[in-house]
Amino acid sequence: MFEQLGLIGCGLMGGSFALALKRAGLVKRVVGYSKSPSTTERARQMGVIDVEAPSALLAVSGADLVLLAVPVSATEATFKAIRHLITKDTLVMDVGSTKRDVVDTARRVLKDHVGIFVPAHPIAGKELSGVEHADVNLYVGRQVILTPIERTLTTQLEKAKKLWTALDCEVKLMSPEAHDAAYAAVSHLPHLIAFALMNAIKGQQASEDFLSLAGPGFRDFSRIAASDPQVWRDILLSNREELMAQSRHFQRALHALELALTNTDADKLESLIGEASKARSRWRIGSKLKG
Amino acid sequence: MFEQLGLIGCGLMGGSFALALKRAGLVKRVVGYSKSPSTTERARQMGVIDVEAPSALLAVSGADLVLLAVPVSATEATFKAIRHLITKDTLVMDVGSTKRDVVDTARRVLKDHVGIFVPAHPIAGKELSGVEHADVNLYVGRQVILTPIERTLTTQLEKAKKLWTALDCEVKLMSPEAHDAAYAAVSHLPHLIAFALMNAIKGQQASEDFLSLAGPGFRDFSRIAASDPQVWRDILLSNREELMAQSRHFQRALHALELALTNTDADKLESLIGEASKARSRWRIGSKLKG
Repeated sequence: MFEQLGLIGCGLMGGSFALALKRAGLVKRVVGYSKSPSTTERARQMGVIDVEAPSALLAVSGADLVLLAVPVSATEATFKAIRHLITKDTLVMDVGSTKRDVVDTARRVLKDHVGIFVPAHPIAGKELSGVEHADVNLYVGRQVILTPIERTLTTQLEKAKKLWTALDCEVKLMSPEAHDAAYAAVSHLPHLIAFALMNAIKGQQASEDFLSLAGPGFRDFSRIAASDPQVWRDILLSNREELMAQSRHFQRALHALELALTNTDADKLESLIGEASKARSRWRIGSKLKG
Repeated sequence: MFEQLGLIGCGLMGGSFALALKRAGLVKRVVGYSKSPSTTERARQMGVIDVEAPSALLAVSGADLVLLAVPVSATEATFKAIRHLITKDTLVMDVGSTKRDVVDTARRVLKDHVGIFVPAHPIAGKELSGVEHADVNLYVGRQVILTPIERTLTTQLEKAKKLWTALDCEVKLMSPEAHDAAYAAVSHLPHLIAFALMNAIKGQQASEDFLSLAGPGFRDFSRIAASDPQVWRDILLSNREELMAQSRHFQRALHALELALTNTDADKLESLIGEASKARSRWRIGSKLKG
């Protein structure tokens, strides 16, 4: 389907994409670039990429498919570095967790070429970063949200849909704005809260004792707190308005629970917990892999 | 090791205990009682208990081991119901997630017999309640915290240690106070937060859309929000002072993150996330089953 993937950012997300594309027989050659030469080298040694490129521009040279898998804050510099080798036939995508900022940057930097960019957010990840954790199955059965704008070319959008579908993903289309509002609630806020919980515990004298006693509930709840600090700094900052709005919703809901506790209002407390429990019990992950 | 287990409360925790005890060959006969006769009947049909008792007192009659596996708020009534058939040779334990209140109740109700009660908290559970989810492996490899008081009989404490060790648990001893402080931080607060997050999302018009887009991070973070409302109402209420203190620590940590966001202070934000990520990456579950 594609001659050459130019992979910019050979970490967990980018590396897993390259591996999946290769296994599906969708690409002949992967040329990779990472900011750190040792990452690029390891990616080649692992068979994630075929050729190491010394710059983002050279990774894009000759590529009909380009994937940006870099922290959100590196998007603008990356678009600037590669725009001269982008043609009207190239399909460029990203894998970022926020979409409004990426779309804004693409408009500003790619200008007349913005139509070849299809913003993408695969709902997949691990708390472990780096190419050594790249996983050919990372995207299997997951949702991928595409957030095209009015200038996005139909050809490119169709190619993107086909590609992710061929990787066994469920493709959904949304506006960048709707995307960012939803993920503030179901992803960015949970991360913010998980970071806060870990810091709250670590700030106490007995933190080591506390942590040694924690069980499976804590393990699952706090897993996302181990996420990559740079990646999440960028995500939280770039979606901070929606995130702060969601945090206010959360703090109101927390306050309602605390009020029932302070008043030792058992009925109210049970009813508030009951609503949460019912909502979570009914929920199923929105993907082909249920569970 | 034991002639008869009197099981009061044949749900997830009690049912799993009976199954594990039977598999280990540690008990000859299990007599069970649940508030709901249909639960007791199902427990017998499933082989979790051998005999259905029509009252808590009759479940205890002839038992040398008694397990209370009822919501914390039912502890006092249960102790009152069974105290006349408790002898100085009986070992009575509970499986509750809070310990100060249970110990207070035991002192008050059991009076001179309080020494036969060994307060226990196995760090295991599921978001699914009911005997139908009873699992012979629920406690395997998990920590069990025993919180004896000065009046606890050594014989009973030693029996309790041996029993849980034989079920392949790691036994730890703590004071009831230290226990409740630690679990406010690493269990009760995460539950409170998870309930608040679900309620915050459910309270918004777009909640169904939001939830349909949630991925594996949300799945793990919110799993504990599906916990049993009555059980958790009791836990949160009975430990509310420690819990409120932990919630204040959490809200301060959340505020620090939000301040960095509001000030678009990328360095500060990255450093705060970095602390959380490092702490969580280093943490391992405190049990024989690592992971």
